[in-house]
Amino acid sequence: MAQNIYDNEAFFAGYSQLPRSIEGLDGAPEWPSLRALLPELAGRRVLDLGCGFGWFCRWARAQGAAEILGVDLSERMLTRAKAETRDAAISYVKADLEKFSAAPEAFDLVYSSLAFHYIENMEGLLARIHAALVPNGKLVFSVEHPIYTAPARPGWSVDSAGHSRWPVDSYLDEGPRSTDWLAKGVIKQHRTIGTYVSRLLRAGFVISHIEEWGPSKDQVAAHPDWANERQRPMFLLMACSRSENSP
Amino acid sequence: MAQNIYDNEAFFAGYSQLPRSIEGLDGAPEWPSLRALLPELAGRRVLDLGCGFGWFCRWARAQGAAEILGVDLSERMLTRAKAETRDAAISYVKADLEKFSAAPEAFDLVYSSLAFHYIENMEGLLARIHAALVPNGKLVFSVEHPIYTAPARPGWSVDSAGHSRWPVDSYLDEGPRSTDWLAKGVIKQHRTIGTYVSRLLRAGFVISHIEEWGPSKDQVAAHPDWANERQRPMFLLMACSRSENSP
Repeated sequence: MAQNIYDNEAFFAGYSQLPRSIEGLDGAPEWPSLRALLPELAGRRVLDLGCGFGWFCRWARAQGAAEILGVDLSERMLTRAKAETRDAAISYVKADLEKFSAAPEAFDLVYSSLAFHYIENMEGLLARIHAALVPNGKLVFSVEHPIYTAPARPGWSVDSAGHSRWPVDSYLDEGPRSTDWLAKGVIKQHRTIGTYVSRLLRAGFVISHIEEWGPSKDQVAAHPDWANERQRPMFLLMACSRSENSP
Repeated sequence: MAQNIYDNEAFFAGYSQLPRSIEGLDGAPEWPSLRALLPELAGRRVLDLGCGFGWFCRWARAQGAAEILGVDLSERMLTRAKAETRDAAISYVKADLEKFSAAPEAFDLVYSSLAFHYIENMEGLLARIHAALVPNGKLVFSVEHPIYTAPARPGWSVDSAGHSRWPVDSYLDEGPRSTDWLAKGVIKQHRTIGTYVSRLLRAGFVISHIEEWGPSKDQVAAHPDWANERQRPMFLLMACSRSENSP
């Protein structure tokens, strides 16, 4: 079972204060890039894996999606998600993504923001996503970039001139990483881009987009304190589709 | 025009001493991984972009390839390549990959080892490779990994306990990097994995493999001095095919 860190009191309190928790999608600087990868949603059935407070579910509904299912392991997050909508087209279910299965071919789009790096058995998850999608259905997701997750002790190194670098080690040694982010001992799974790609291909997906996300030059001009985030990518965004003639 | 560093006397002298120049393919630690991406070669027509001393061309011929064309910008390398074979099925041409065009649909496989990171106009090169391949033809290539090419001043940082890290900066700022490797001022083009992928997709290729290469644990056991090469990937290996119904 995946670590349920979002139900840790200190973590949840900290997470609730992030711009992406207060402002929703517009508080997430990578959102414009992720949104650009989404298909037309009108009339579509959407599955959101790791839906958190349900911001994306409500947004998808506003775009005309016909049916939206949000899945999350966190009781605290789902409680708030449910409190924020009365729309019968949106439903939420509490489940561990390590095990959750949807009905076969029940969705046109599977979306996931910053959840898969908590998952140990990516192969199993992708097989279940594949089965849940209609042929040609899309999978669009973001994870923390492996450059970000690789280091044993992640952090900037700043030289005497004030220039920041991100020291990388252990990149090729995949597996769990324990970091202190909002709470002590948050467990994330480090895997390379190569591994994400080979797992996707083996599961029967066709790759249509890979983006190593950092703020654009325009975003940095508007938020000069983000400049360092161009030194190394923070997130990895991917889009793919279930191939028509998959196994 | 791409910088012709291989015809620089000091660079050429240094390059000629590398294991991969003396022992050929078996002197390149990434070769087993790259070879695993190749299709069956018997009876096939093969184009090697950046063929250097012609090791791959001769190997492809030994696998039964029917016709092999090696292309390189370096006079010195081609002179040696030509001197080492009399096989009429192998030919060499001196050309700048920034401009070289093959006959349309003349090849079943385009191969390139560690050459594309010298190329400025990747989009143009991929369009020409696409045109040179038969439908379903394969492109298999290696480049220096962007983690390796990104830093303004590449090099290991070693802490007091002797642990090595590879500080990354400027990752999202693509473009030329000048490094001192075998000679001063060698110009390489830094681009992200995301950019390689989007250029390939836009050119009409289907991605079939992405590998962030470092030595395997077995290779490190045999060469303990390679251990650091698992801290960050040195090479990026990719395989893709010209899609059947391309533009």
